[in-house]
Amino acid sequence: MDTLNVELGDRSYPILIGEGLISRPEAFAALSARDVLIVSNTTVAPLYMRALRCALGVRRCVEVILPDGEAHKSLANMARVLDVLIANRFGRDCAVLALGGGVVGDLAGFVAATYQRGVAFVQVPTTLLAQVDSAVGGKTAVNHPGGKNLIGAFHQPHLVVSDTHTLSTLPGRELRAGLAEVIKYGLICDPALFDWIEARLGRLLAKDPLALAHVIRRSCEIKAAIVGRDEREQGERALLNLGHTFGHAAEAATAYREWLHGEAVGAGMVMAAAMSRECGLLSAPEAARVRQLVELAGLPAQVPSVSPAVLLEHMRIDKKVLQGRLRLVLLRRIGEAFVTADYPEAALQSTLAQHAGAAT
Amino acid sequence: MDTLNVELGDRSYPILIGEGLISRPEAFAALSARDVLIVSNTTVAPLYMRALRCALGVRRCVEVILPDGEAHKSLANMARVLDVLIANRFGRDCAVLALGGGVVGDLAGFVAATYQRGVAFVQVPTTLLAQVDSAVGGKTAVNHPGGKNLIGAFHQPHLVVSDTHTLSTLPGRELRAGLAEVIKYGLICDPALFDWIEARLGRLLAKDPLALAHVIRRSCEIKAAIVGRDEREQGERALLNLGHTFGHAAEAATAYREWLHGEAVGAGMVMAAAMSRECGLLSAPEAARVRQLVELAGLPAQVPSVSPAVLLEHMRIDKKVLQGRLRLVLLRRIGEAFVTADYPEAALQSTLAQHAGAAT
Repeated sequence: MDTLNVELGDRSYPILIGEGLISRPEAFAALSARDVLIVSNTTVAPLYMRALRCALGVRRCVEVILPDGEAHKSLANMARVLDVLIANRFGRDCAVLALGGGVVGDLAGFVAATYQRGVAFVQVPTTLLAQVDSAVGGKTAVNHPGGKNLIGAFHQPHLVVSDTHTLSTLPGRELRAGLAEVIKYGLICDPALFDWIEARLGRLLAKDPLALAHVIRRSCEIKAAIVGRDEREQGERALLNLGHTFGHAAEAATAYREWLHGEAVGAGMVMAAAMSRECGLLSAPEAARVRQLVELAGLPAQVPSVSPAVLLEHMRIDKKVLQGRLRLVLLRRIGEAFVTADYPEAALQSTLAQHAGAAT
Repeated sequence: MDTLNVELGDRSYPILIGEGLISRPEAFAALSARDVLIVSNTTVAPLYMRALRCALGVRRCVEVILPDGEAHKSLANMARVLDVLIANRFGRDCAVLALGGGVVGDLAGFVAATYQRGVAFVQVPTTLLAQVDSAVGGKTAVNHPGGKNLIGAFHQPHLVVSDTHTLSTLPGRELRAGLAEVIKYGLICDPALFDWIEARLGRLLAKDPLALAHVIRRSCEIKAAIVGRDEREQGERALLNLGHTFGHAAEAATAYREWLHGEAVGAGMVMAAAMSRECGLLSAPEAARVRQLVELAGLPAQVPSVSPAVLLEHMRIDKKVLQGRLRLVLLRRIGEAFVTADYPEAALQSTLAQHAGAAT
């Protein structure tokens, strides 16, 4: 069992990474709550709920099983989970545990953030995307028809238990979606990681346990360091949104039904690289490497089903709009990203025209 | 204009207290947001919205006017306000402003806490209760049919503007409800304030501006000091819940329709004093003084419409239940409250039997 700490003063917490952790009581030893609400979905619960409940031992566990998918990360389902907590008379000393991917984690985390103004939260991520990204860092949210993650809170988990064995049952499409976030870490600050993924993409796609363990560990290290320095996204943390402004817009424009989040991020990173090239920041060969790795990873590189105008419309209600100006994360080179609102509007328009709708 | 600071490091903020502040642009000078969502209700908006919007000057203001009353402090209305923010494309740099009493402030504050994971929040309290209590300290929440304030967040305002002139239009019943919270401050830590209220109750009930300004200032000082030492209610802040565990249960048992919050707190303080007497903590004369002041203030001293059993049932789902044991704020004397879960169950039962349902 590999342990990594997210350093946030009195809100610090460990990330445990290892094979088979879901079944091991010692992984949950730090969890003092006697009452645990487990939030999961119809895909993951049949696979891992029993093992998890065994590991949780004598604690009183109540389950809420949601339908699977981003479309269900709604205020309505958040209210449904709150109803269960209240119906079961859970006190302020209970814990909410998310067993599943990013959707379950984000929604359960928002419930934990708001139930009685905040109760303990445990993440047990079962997708690559959740293990490398969404389960770490304390962002919780639900979607609104008007935009993704528009309603939420910062609420750090008390514990993250990443069982790499759960990736064995992960569909290939989900695995690739998770790789998008791993590629992102390389792009924003770790060129060696980017090279590593390029060289070992086949092993990652074949679910080689050692290769996956390496990228999970490295991704969590990078994210933990950034979150430790900028928990509430006043500055540096915004780099983690590389590809997300484009990606969120694509998700919202398709009502969260067509894309997995990581797929949208894949296309978003290609667009961010193309726009960085368009602005004369990124070299053509590096922009091409980004596109190539995204495509080789089996991720989309464009948004065929949405027109550029509709995509732009959705980008404009993104959380990253400040004083009416949309901020974007762009690249100077592979391994060096930065946040800016200072770019030619024409470069954005041209990038959208080349990657969305009729472009394809 | 009197200024009082709540000291919370980088979340410190001023409370401005004065006559006619709503109409004065300088009261809002610290508000940098250009887009302001004003949340108010059908009672308050017709009285003060126009003056407030003039004072806010060139800022883009959008209004949401809710029905008046505790029953509307719901997750459904919170969603409604979020819809308006999103429909108007408000960015992360907007502000949410609450113009009204505790219901408007709690709900608007919870919206501000969760919209885009937190935007600026301004409180413009127009009731005595909000000015002395709910607008200060950062507790936000909505009610659930299963209990009051069960869903919420800690989110400090950036600014509190208390215009004492608004109390001139406040119905007497609302004024008395606010006095309950003022009496509470005296009971928990300021015997001189309790004496002061006893001596000048007539002036307060007659809305003497100087008397009101004194108790508002003193109440805010006490609350600001306690919140500054214990923002998230890990300890001392729980004292502010004196009378609230009994009171919330009475409100919930009557579906938030029969009682004003302050009325329920009035009855709750009488019960807390009676139980403190029952436990041999508070002297009989002091318990009698508490009951007498509550009654002279025109507040209820018991809960005739709810049976003791139903009241207890509602108390058991209060946020103050820890490890299955209900914590209560009790009194050693007037001006000295403490939190405890160590009391004879019989004392609680007997207190409820004497103050609820058939007792009357």
